[in-house]
Amino acid sequence: MIGELALDSTGERVGDGVHGIDLSDRWGLDDGRLNGGYQISVALRALAAEVPLPDPVVASASYLRPAWPGPARVLTEVVRAGRRLATGTARLVQAGPDGVERDVLRLEASFADLAATPADPVDLTAPPELPPFEQCRTFGGDDAPPEVASVGRRMRYGVTAMPGWTRGEPSGDPSAEFWFAFADGSDATLLDLAFVVDGAAPVVLELGRGSSTVQLTVHLREHPAPGPLACRTVTRHLAHGLHEEDVEVWDSRGVLVAQSRQLALLL
Amino acid sequence: MIGELALDSTGERVGDGVHGIDLSDRWGLDDGRLNGGYQISVALRALAAEVPLPDPVVASASYLRPAWPGPARVLTEVVRAGRRLATGTARLVQAGPDGVERDVLRLEASFADLAATPADPVDLTAPPELPPFEQCRTFGGDDAPPEVASVGRRMRYGVTAMPGWTRGEPSGDPSAEFWFAFADGSDATLLDLAFVVDGAAPVVLELGRGSSTVQLTVHLREHPAPGPLACRTVTRHLAHGLHEEDVEVWDSRGVLVAQSRQLALLL
Repeated sequence: MIGELALDSTGERVGDGVHGIDLSDRWGLDDGRLNGGYQISVALRALAAEVPLPDPVVASASYLRPAWPGPARVLTEVVRAGRRLATGTARLVQAGPDGVERDVLRLEASFADLAATPADPVDLTAPPELPPFEQCRTFGGDDAPPEVASVGRRMRYGVTAMPGWTRGEPSGDPSAEFWFAFADGSDATLLDLAFVVDGAAPVVLELGRGSSTVQLTVHLREHPAPGPLACRTVTRHLAHGLHEEDVEVWDSRGVLVAQSRQLALLL
Repeated sequence: MIGELALDSTGERVGDGVHGIDLSDRWGLDDGRLNGGYQISVALRALAAEVPLPDPVVASASYLRPAWPGPARVLTEVVRAGRRLATGTARLVQAGPDGVERDVLRLEASFADLAATPADPVDLTAPPELPPFEQCRTFGGDDAPPEVASVGRRMRYGVTAMPGWTRGEPSGDPSAEFWFAFADGSDATLLDLAFVVDGAAPVVLELGRGSSTVQLTVHLREHPAPGPLACRTVTRHLAHGLHEEDVEVWDSRGVLVAQSRQLALLL
């Protein structure tokens, strides 16, 4: 089953390394701007179509301007294609009201062929300890209340207790552990993980603060097994109106499949 | 006092956003290739000269090919200059034996003005617990044995015990805590921290493995106070011949000044 994230993130090749796409309003935030993880999904899929190795292993993205539903282009460049690694860049550009195209997101990513090297995984941290997804309280998805932004309808979260910020009572602890699943029932692919790490609400909400991503780097380490993903999110350092946020994603077998770190503005 | 890292990393503006530099052989590895942190230092300094805000707060770098001592150029582009943040890219290019210039390093960085926002630091982790630098066993610097690569002579490390790998006995624990100081006695600047996080030996040496950086992202959070820097390095996840390495850098006041994560090939 091809998930709706892939369907909504895949454009059409319209020229040499250039992909056109109609950005979907189904991945929007409260004010209609598009979720950052969706933007990465779009840019990374266009780049993946150009790079001769199959598996993105690291992607770094700078968020420059808001992206909105509607026409956009991804301009890709393969900057090195080696035997073990290939690296390229992708610029997501969109015209403003003046008709001038501007950079919305700049992404750089390296690809490998994970199957070419035995996994031999060593994980020196443990996955989140969560009850099975089915036993958790869930929120998001199609039955979310009307005020939930469209991107929140695309996924379901499983938690042991609702986060404090959702009831206007920030806990003071900027960390969270939760299950993630796509609402359409599709299983996340390796590439989808670059969306997952920027799909959830920022944990600085538990400090009563909002957040806007400046830069995000994600390591994509393993093809996830089918099923929901166990996520751990934490912010440990705030200074000068900036904070970092680390996310780990573990699959249903308990294998670390992705980890990310972002630098973000406190709002 | 301007440190030798700044002196050896600062080129000359030779055109619109283009800087020329003679890469120094004083920052080399065993085989003469140049240290990755030095490459970042060169690229980031050229970009800093073009960007209208003073303080780099995040830099991400992809390592594409080895860099060697000798002539090179840095091609910079400012991609967005806003009020709070400015973002640009820098390509370190160097001609090969065939005379053709190729990308060695691609860097993207965002800058802010840290002084424009109160620090109000919140650090939810603690700095390494190390005895004072003066009471530590030190290695590196001018009195290092002849087999130590030139970059190892540019800095001094302070440790409570020599790392196992240095005596051919890897400990099996891929983590380390140590003091860092430039051997010339200069204090590290905010920008220098982008070198510091890639200056030390990889901790996978404690697993008996070597390492080659694919991509590194560093957050530069605060101007360091004078004095040595306390560093914590750890690798937690290995799979498919790749590993991550996290580095935290704390200044002599116990303030987190930088943190980095890299993805690297196991050798």
